[in-house]
Amino acid sequence: MIRIAIDAMGGDFGPEPIIEGVIQALDEKKFLPILVGDREQIISFLPQYYLNKVEIIKASDVISMSDQATQALKRKESSIFKAVELVRDGKADAVVSAGHSGATMTLATLRIGRLPGISKPALATIMPNKSMSAKTLLLDVGAVTDCTAKNLYEFAIMGEVYAKKLLGLKNPTVGLLSNGEEDSKGNALTKEAFKLMHSVPGFKGNVEGSDIFNGSVDVVVCDGYTGNIVLKASEGVVSTVFDLMKTHIRKSIPAKIGAFMMKKKVFKKLKEKVDYAEYGGAPLLGVKGCAIISHGKSNSKAIKNAIFQAINYNNSGVNSTIEELLKKNNA
Amino acid sequence: MIRIAIDAMGGDFGPEPIIEGVIQALDEKKFLPILVGDREQIISFLPQYYLNKVEIIKASDVISMSDQATQALKRKESSIFKAVELVRDGKADAVVSAGHSGATMTLATLRIGRLPGISKPALATIMPNKSMSAKTLLLDVGAVTDCTAKNLYEFAIMGEVYAKKLLGLKNPTVGLLSNGEEDSKGNALTKEAFKLMHSVPGFKGNVEGSDIFNGSVDVVVCDGYTGNIVLKASEGVVSTVFDLMKTHIRKSIPAKIGAFMMKKKVFKKLKEKVDYAEYGGAPLLGVKGCAIISHGKSNSKAIKNAIFQAINYNNSGVNSTIEELLKKNNA
Repeated sequence: MIRIAIDAMGGDFGPEPIIEGVIQALDEKKFLPILVGDREQIISFLPQYYLNKVEIIKASDVISMSDQATQALKRKESSIFKAVELVRDGKADAVVSAGHSGATMTLATLRIGRLPGISKPALATIMPNKSMSAKTLLLDVGAVTDCTAKNLYEFAIMGEVYAKKLLGLKNPTVGLLSNGEEDSKGNALTKEAFKLMHSVPGFKGNVEGSDIFNGSVDVVVCDGYTGNIVLKASEGVVSTVFDLMKTHIRKSIPAKIGAFMMKKKVFKKLKEKVDYAEYGGAPLLGVKGCAIISHGKSNSKAIKNAIFQAINYNNSGVNSTIEELLKKNNA
Repeated sequence: MIRIAIDAMGGDFGPEPIIEGVIQALDEKKFLPILVGDREQIISFLPQYYLNKVEIIKASDVISMSDQATQALKRKESSIFKAVELVRDGKADAVVSAGHSGATMTLATLRIGRLPGISKPALATIMPNKSMSAKTLLLDVGAVTDCTAKNLYEFAIMGEVYAKKLLGLKNPTVGLLSNGEEDSKGNALTKEAFKLMHSVPGFKGNVEGSDIFNGSVDVVVCDGYTGNIVLKASEGVVSTVFDLMKTHIRKSIPAKIGAFMMKKKVFKKLKEKVDYAEYGGAPLLGVKGCAIISHGKSNSKAIKNAIFQAINYNNSGVNSTIEELLKKNNA
């Protein structure tokens, strides 16, 4: 049975939504949750029925959002340190955390270690796009702020394999994020990376910012500084569009009625489409194991989906395929 | 009277919307448009009444969107080359072009030249934000793909002055685009730039992608690679949100009626807010003169507003203020 170490203390809302997510996941799938954190708090949110379906590992410390990621290695009693350590020691198959993402990435990278051939892991996130069913995988969104061309090449390989194995795409296409589609476009980094991309399956060349959302490619590769900014800017745009809409709706009675009539069939569907809870968390690709980084504001549904993502990740053979592809390309 | 050189041939839709924009501008303000391009075509779109209100300069060549910006310097008969040359030669006070933006930037930078103290000009664009009235100035959005820390510092100075002089803000605030708000966040470039920013009036520290749209600062500074990607990604998000909305509306009769009721008071207002035609063009800050780069898809309204922007630019003293501030900071 797959064992998932879960940082029960991480996340902006404490253990409650996390434990709830675990319960929802247990109701649908068979796996062993290993809950790491304050035993009493965990038990207080866990109905009797589920007590013998989970393992609890005590951790007395919690790394808070305001702490520095660099402290993570020293805080050995923290829930995230102990959860990562379970994967390192082979006592868990994956770790899921909605806590300090920098700390989780640092610990997963340094304590679990990298896959052979990977110089730096990348954080991948799913972006909704124009198509009703498809999504775009964007990486890196914040693990490596200063990348080398080789990093970007590895990100492309990992993204392609993840899209194939986890998003169910037969022949995923890959684009390199740039300031224009022409081969000659890009900054010094992407121009150098471009030359390495020929051996990435499905590589389609440079893509622009708009291509992340129009479904023209399945995987978009960039450095973590740019990816993080694009991710937050996109969330900002969506939130601004809806805020402005609400402001205008409030001012007009016909608009209020109109908005009510659109609620179920339009706004609810849109909300679902842009709701990260639907997509689970962001996998840290390139670590020798599986680490899923969930949004700090994760609700129970987001945690449930992150757990399912970890289970699928383990069943998919994504890591071994990445290793093989890198080895083949280097041969 | 202010003389504005206008590339009459640039833009995706040929001379028609450009000449129409000039006519609309002439109906509202006094200035001398110097139209550069094919004389016959220009005259064919120009009613008799306006003939003696404009100057026409013949240009037999047009740089098309598929041409390389590097060719611009050699294409001396092109409309954009000749329009820029008018500013260089002191025969025009500003140039407005909706043509090949790379060519316009190259020509404006190399033929008109840079302001004293400016190492690289930056393209600045206005982004709508959450506030009903305010906007955010983002620069650079594509002039300099590989920046130095000094470039970013100069962009910050130029953005602050532009916001004060052209956007009517008394004490504009300035943020450095980064992957987190903490001082320690950023890539190698922005970390170095951060150290130079203390002498930028209104500097507020690092800002995130979402801050471009929530109105938390007035000016956001970044390198041209990142800015270009953020700009196009934001346009992509808006277009995707509206496309998805339309798809859902089409499937439900109540939603269709609801959308109709929201049309005038909500959707129209939103469209205005995100319509670049309202904002004119993007100024290339740092050139010894005034160059306004308009969107290739500019309609007549966008051209009219770009012309007004050029007039305001010339009346504002923005260039001399930038010079003075740089000199003062270096002293």
